Amino acid sequence: MEFFDVIKARYSHKARFDPNTPVPKEDLIRIVEAGMAAPSANNNQSPEFIIIDDPALLRQIGELTESVPLRTAPAMIAVLTRPRFREVFDIETECLIADYAAATENMLLAATALGYSCGWQDGPFVDSAVRSKAEALLAIPADRALALIIPVGRPAEEGPRRTKKPFAQRASWNRYAVER
Amino acid sequence: MEFFDVIKARYSHKARFDPNTPVPKEDLIRIVEAGMAAPSANNNQSPEFIIIDDPALLRQIGELTESVPLRTAPAMIAVLTRPRFREVFDIETECLIADYAAATENMLLAATALGYSCGWQDGPFVDSAVRSKAEALLAIPADRALALIIPVGRPAEEGPRRTKKPFAQRASWNRYAVER
Repeated sequence: MEFFDVIKARYSHKARFDPNTPVPKEDLIRIVEAGMAAPSANNNQSPEFIIIDDPALLRQIGELTESVPLRTAPAMIAVLTRPRFREVFDIETECLIADYAAATENMLLAATALGYSCGWQDGPFVDSAVRSKAEALLAIPADRALALIIPVGRPAEEGPRRTKKPFAQRASWNRYAVER
Repeated sequence: MEFFDVIKARYSHKARFDPNTPVPKEDLIRIVEAGMAAPSANNNQSPEFIIIDDPALLRQIGELTESVPLRTAPAMIAVLTRPRFREVFDIETECLIADYAAATENMLLAATALGYSCGWQDGPFVDSAVRSKAEALLAIPADRALALIIPVGRPAEEGPRRTKKPFAQRASWNRYAVER
């Protein structure tokens, strides 16, 4: 798919997925490889990934949350970073966050390029009790932390698509002159 | 350009740009539009952008730093967020960082898709004195902050390209089993 068409097509799917149309392993690998190709601070490659396609595990993760996409997705990609991302704030933490965000964006675009809908589900895991349960289900060790989960699949229904502000409300030339 | 070819081609250009081959305004607009299309927490669209193509201003920004790409780039895109991104750490700050990182990644890919080299230059602006000077040159108001600058252009020389770890050292299936 042409790059700028992918940029235009990507959206955050907030509605139901079709849980009965699985995502082939080869597509999940291509999506994760795109995440691995993202830049990271000093090329540290801090983000790590757990690809989830086991039906029982998908159900267990979904049941931890009220998220409709997480409760219906036929596949998920868990994006991991280091626990300090919510414990200590400094430049290193800022880099960890930027690293996982760039990798996540690559994966959202890659899933879109392959014809899937997807989303960036971090909200449910801000609650440290929920995050701990998800980390236990995924056998995540103490020196790693779950940042977010990307549900991937074919949509079962059209979700709403958000609109974006016009160009002049977010950009200007050579000096700050954003309209607001 | 095909999406997965763009993913493969993107790299962080750390060497000299050709300062005499300008980037047309229409290409800079397409790159920034890709940044605007990135997801953001609750669609808040927090990242804002200043496109820099004025030669005198490019030189002034470059001279604030020792960065070879910033000192030679024929165009730059400054990525802005809110000052709290380095003042207060909480979920809101984490969202601001993730928002600017996702927008930045979209722009790096878009520049690559249009045949340019580019990079993610945040290091020089970690120093708050340098950041303040750059913010003054760009007339950035007190309620906005410079997160990073993306230099864009044709490379004057080949830069080094970093290698990435193999798949199994960053990903596993259904439970954490990353080789390390």
